[in-house]
Amino acid sequence: MASMLLSRQLTCCLQQNSRLLVFGHRYISQAAAKIDVDFDYDGPLMKTEVPGPRSRELMKQLNGIQNAEAVHFFCNYEESRGNYLVDVDGNRMLDLYSQISSIPIGYSHPSLIKLLQQPQNLSTFINRPALGILPPENFAERLKESLLSVAPKGLPQVITMSCGSCSNENAFKAIFMWYRNKERGHTNVTKEELESCMINQPPGCPDYAMLSFMGGFHGRTLGCLATTHSKAIHKLDIPSLDWPIAPFPRLKYPLEDFVKENQQEEARCLEEVEDLIVKYRKKKKIVAGIIVEPIQSEGGDNHASDDFFRKLRDIARKHGCAFLVDEVQTGGGCTGKFWAHEHWGLDDPADVVTFSKKMMTGGFFHKEEFRPNAPYRIFNTWLGDPSKNLMLAEVIKVIKREDLLNNATHAGKALLTGLLDLQARYPHLISRVRGRGTFCSFDTPNDATRNKLITIARNKGLTLLKRSTQGMSFCNNTFLFLCSELKCTQAWLISRHS
Amino acid sequence: MASMLLSRQLTCCLQQNSRLLVFGHRYISQAAAKIDVDFDYDGPLMKTEVPGPRSRELMKQLNGIQNAEAVHFFCNYEESRGNYLVDVDGNRMLDLYSQISSIPIGYSHPSLIKLLQQPQNLSTFINRPALGILPPENFAERLKESLLSVAPKGLPQVITMSCGSCSNENAFKAIFMWYRNKERGHTNVTKEELESCMINQPPGCPDYAMLSFMGGFHGRTLGCLATTHSKAIHKLDIPSLDWPIAPFPRLKYPLEDFVKENQQEEARCLEEVEDLIVKYRKKKKIVAGIIVEPIQSEGGDNHASDDFFRKLRDIARKHGCAFLVDEVQTGGGCTGKFWAHEHWGLDDPADVVTFSKKMMTGGFFHKEEFRPNAPYRIFNTWLGDPSKNLMLAEVIKVIKREDLLNNATHAGKALLTGLLDLQARYPHLISRVRGRGTFCSFDTPNDATRNKLITIARNKGLTLLKRSTQGMSFCNNTFLFLCSELKCTQAWLISRHS
Repeated sequence: MASMLLSRQLTCCLQQNSRLLVFGHRYISQAAAKIDVDFDYDGPLMKTEVPGPRSRELMKQLNGIQNAEAVHFFCNYEESRGNYLVDVDGNRMLDLYSQISSIPIGYSHPSLIKLLQQPQNLSTFINRPALGILPPENFAERLKESLLSVAPKGLPQVITMSCGSCSNENAFKAIFMWYRNKERGHTNVTKEELESCMINQPPGCPDYAMLSFMGGFHGRTLGCLATTHSKAIHKLDIPSLDWPIAPFPRLKYPLEDFVKENQQEEARCLEEVEDLIVKYRKKKKIVAGIIVEPIQSEGGDNHASDDFFRKLRDIARKHGCAFLVDEVQTGGGCTGKFWAHEHWGLDDPADVVTFSKKMMTGGFFHKEEFRPNAPYRIFNTWLGDPSKNLMLAEVIKVIKREDLLNNATHAGKALLTGLLDLQARYPHLISRVRGRGTFCSFDTPNDATRNKLITIARNKGLTLLKRSTQGMSFCNNTFLFLCSELKCTQAWLISRHS
Repeated sequence: MASMLLSRQLTCCLQQNSRLLVFGHRYISQAAAKIDVDFDYDGPLMKTEVPGPRSRELMKQLNGIQNAEAVHFFCNYEESRGNYLVDVDGNRMLDLYSQISSIPIGYSHPSLIKLLQQPQNLSTFINRPALGILPPENFAERLKESLLSVAPKGLPQVITMSCGSCSNENAFKAIFMWYRNKERGHTNVTKEELESCMINQPPGCPDYAMLSFMGGFHGRTLGCLATTHSKAIHKLDIPSLDWPIAPFPRLKYPLEDFVKENQQEEARCLEEVEDLIVKYRKKKKIVAGIIVEPIQSEGGDNHASDDFFRKLRDIARKHGCAFLVDEVQTGGGCTGKFWAHEHWGLDDPADVVTFSKKMMTGGFFHKEEFRPNAPYRIFNTWLGDPSKNLMLAEVIKVIKREDLLNNATHAGKALLTGLLDLQARYPHLISRVRGRGTFCSFDTPNDATRNKLITIARNKGLTLLKRSTQGMSFCNNTFLFLCSELKCTQAWLISRHS
């Protein structure tokens, strides 16, 4: 009975939500004129419960080949367009999930279709080169028109990788090499170093560490996993490295009511960072770098103030550690700036910035001084994929042409205003509303409420992402309105309005 | 003067080589009838030294963005066809390098071009899904017609990844989970495990290890790198894990002259494997798995007998360790079987087999018992790329249709016979000729000879791969005739004949 009541309340909440968010934000509708409307569906269209019968049949089939228990439903990508994801049962959903924030400009974007249809581009898709040794003629040019055209200020160097984990792993390596060269003070490597590294021992393999934050997520390969602390399921049974882990601020909302408490909380975390660096150095484990997400995403959408990050950057510099900003999930424009860390107003840029997901290719930007001092030090067979660089160049053109960063800012404001209003009206269901651009989220009181809301929303044609962190000090039940499709919130508003 | 003499000898050696290899292998030319000749160039065509002026100009440009010292030359992939790689200065080279063995059926294959031109395939290239949660309708079907159609016997499960390093990293994780579940004897995880894993500590993050071999190469991310021991440049300055490293047999050639010595050498290495497992267990570090390449590729093309691998598999079983065969470089058909380890005739299949490169997608096959026991344990955003699965399905069709495995066997025999003859005539230049299928190689007396031969060959229109291992006990100077393009040797013979 309690459950039925809850369900009705949530349904009601969603319905009012849609009306609410449109109110007072007509500029959103005006901006919509820029979008190729021929290519957008006009709203969700639901035919079955999700997952529907065809999805369930395919799940069974896939489960014979691999563990398919994480599958939500199967998709018909040919029919998916813009913000709308169509499943194999013919359900059309407004997608605020965007493939775990990895789709930059929606499904089947006409500009990308055109790109694929141009005969001169075919070769790029079928002849994948070993980029580090035999790059295509236009490699540097394509990097300039794609990644370098949006490079964070002060980071003129870029290396591409195939995924987010490889981006962070290789960024760590660049940091370790930089640190070691700094320690050496010269470029001569000893015979002992060359020999000991071959058997995984110091001094060749020095006892360096990356400092990370509790609640952070930086990938799932062994190096990355040592800096990931969002969910136990990622880490259980996997050997790891004794690297320092600092607390990440746990801010109280609404921010304006807890100014002092939040400042104290951030100061406490920063103090712990410094203590850990010193403590680990004492036990001969040197913190070569600090890795942090501008918004802890997988870990439950945890924000900190711009001031926190500026001070963290200062601590890194003070202790000679590299400052690595992981923009794998936050990069690409959803916060209203191309890189979320650009909101901070750093005097001294980050040293390394990693990316993947909405950038279509993995990789990292870095300062000149982090450039590997010899070939083959940061290297693998593919080093990314030129076909992804080609698509990214087009995506960036679309983002600029359609002014999607501003759009994310405006749509995000509308979304946040609506969520705050919902929170005021349903405080027992919605709390800690927060966001930057369309990267918005709120907490629910428990898992059951959250799961129910997701199911109700999905069956009404709206896909949401749940974040839930387990273990340790975190126990959020967070929704993230995924912001990877920069037009997403806008389209939602439009569709609800019409 | 000595250098000039050397140069002349090598030139002469290459010229005679071409005549030599054709002799007595007419069946090779007959097999050629199957190939779409419209699409193959008829031989190399050299216009400048390589790298030519345009390549050098582009190198300078790229070097402003990233360390480009490893670049050999820049390529014109649009003009590259079949076995022939065309550079930006208009030089057309017979490619025995094949992008570090990552091109399966040559450049611009007409079947792949057709695939890209089919409108129904466009969506697969532009709508990259998060495969683990929202797969496309045809995902299981495509896995069946691509990877599962060539799955090693006894390994019915497959998970895709984006690159070779991620394949090995995730295979390690599957092995660690399997081992831990075996140790637990039940599926209940303790609170202590859940909490300790969040801070990288045991028991949640147990002190498990993978045993690897000196000279092996398994990738460059931190977990993989702890099992990679081919060159110091890969490992220097990167923190690592204290995991056991066994010696890999150093066989003497010709094999028939050193039967007893080689048996002893292999027995010594196997004994060391067992000793290490026991020794590490004593210090509470448990060897959960053994990783090995069927042919140590990056480490200098080191072979061992089928018997060695069968015994190694037995040792793994005896000690309860998983047996992981890394086929990232050897898989795909170049040895004459689709997987190199199929030559061994194992009674009990390998537990896990990893792949990437010529398979176009990374990933791993595994036995049922290595299947993750819960969702999200082996997971990341992309989990591979359906566009690569689509292309792989086509590549496998071509391999079957054109009988390319047999072709690799025949062409490989011709190549090996020719190399053995060259070795007999130029023993001061060529030694330790060895190979399986077209995966052939020889040693030169020193780096200078090797580098000279590569330069001469390249300027005559033939790209070769150098392998050179540094440090520790290895000091090879090895050529590998890269076998990734299954028709490659054949085309070489044809072109030299015509």
